[in-house]
Amino acid sequence: MSLVLYERLCADDRRPSPFCWRARFALAHKGLTPKVRAIKFSEAEQVAFSGQTKVPVLIDGQSVIHDSWGIACYLEDAYPDAPSLFGGPGGRAVTRLVSHWVDHSLEKALAPLLIPSLLAVACPEDRAYYRQTREAKFGLTIEQMTVRRQGYLEALRPVLEPLRQHLKETPFLCGERPAYADYLVFGDFQWARSVCDQDLLWPEERELRAWRSCMLDLFGGLARSVTAFDTAAC
Amino acid sequence: MSLVLYERLCADDRRPSPFCWRARFALAHKGLTPKVRAIKFSEAEQVAFSGQTKVPVLIDGQSVIHDSWGIACYLEDAYPDAPSLFGGPGGRAVTRLVSHWVDHSLEKALAPLLIPSLLAVACPEDRAYYRQTREAKFGLTIEQMTVRRQGYLEALRPVLEPLRQHLKETPFLCGERPAYADYLVFGDFQWARSVCDQDLLWPEERELRAWRSCMLDLFGGLARSVTAFDTAAC
Repeated sequence: MSLVLYERLCADDRRPSPFCWRARFALAHKGLTPKVRAIKFSEAEQVAFSGQTKVPVLIDGQSVIHDSWGIACYLEDAYPDAPSLFGGPGGRAVTRLVSHWVDHSLEKALAPLLIPSLLAVACPEDRAYYRQTREAKFGLTIEQMTVRRQGYLEALRPVLEPLRQHLKETPFLCGERPAYADYLVFGDFQWARSVCDQDLLWPEERELRAWRSCMLDLFGGLARSVTAFDTAAC
Repeated sequence: MSLVLYERLCADDRRPSPFCWRARFALAHKGLTPKVRAIKFSEAEQVAFSGQTKVPVLIDGQSVIHDSWGIACYLEDAYPDAPSLFGGPGGRAVTRLVSHWVDHSLEKALAPLLIPSLLAVACPEDRAYYRQTREAKFGLTIEQMTVRRQGYLEALRPVLEPLRQHLKETPFLCGERPAYADYLVFGDFQWARSVCDQDLLWPEERELRAWRSCMLDLFGGLARSVTAFDTAAC
């Protein structure tokens, strides 16, 4: 078995990409340990063999899979005897809806909070590219995002409400044990602690803090094994 | 088999409650046809036997179940041989997360748009109660909500984005066939068409319109069988 996962590299060996953390956790959930190759934004040619330029990319023997959702579905189908990421076909379909919520609601709320921090920990040769692409995407300069930080923090609160309510009822988003919807959401929290020296959760966020702490402990402390700020240490 | 469902009644025999539509569709999904008893806000004593005052309430023989999620879980467990509402245990857990998103994000965006319309179609004897409770909940008068309508409409657009993206990939939120996550979300669209004479979807909302049309056709046109505005006829 030769498993290789390509993921994003930042300065100080940081690994901030939330999409790559989804893949890391999905592999761990299946009991698989890939060889990890971390590449800078400016090293996209290293994954050109996958037919596109983004990470994560997974190589599993002869198979090359890109896109975090594609990787999750591949692992679920290729390793059916390992613990399920979705808990059945209904779970897969609805987890995909959750992934769209993470991509288009949660990340939209987090991105302007985290982009200025990520710029500061990007590899020096990546910073011009990162600034240019993110400023174009949001129609704001990094400095404007920084100035508006308090507003973004306040706007984040209601976005987290479904998670808060759900975690009042159950220890993980997927029930008694974590599965892919947990990894989807946790990828964003790992992104935050990888780049930002201020905790985005308020002190009174009991359920979210407890869940995040459990997620950090999973798989022998997988998420704690990389360079990060300890503000989210719980 | 004696199945009775209590739901909300408004003027002109309208049935706007999104929570009750979840129960109606869950019952239909299981192949069950309840006797429906519709009650006004001012007739809460009619469901006092359930230990609380809200609808939906389901009576199934000796069982009395309230709360739309409680009813869905009851039906899934009591009728395991009928089509599944969740598609397995993973589906149930993640669908509960979707229900919290509907309750705390989608409905929060829709409520100030629809409350003024619902007031207009509430039974005359319910209007003072409805106005007082909704104004207190939102800290705004009905008239203030009406004035801010355009802003609420614009704020609704990004909230729908996860649905829009998901429906680009799959005909129903639960995949090839509808299940409970579809009913959760559709309950809100049925609420809208039950009370509001203006369509909340923009003309270019192709995927959401196609999905809504399919949902209206389900179970012999169940959702079309009640008094509603035809703005959402698609």
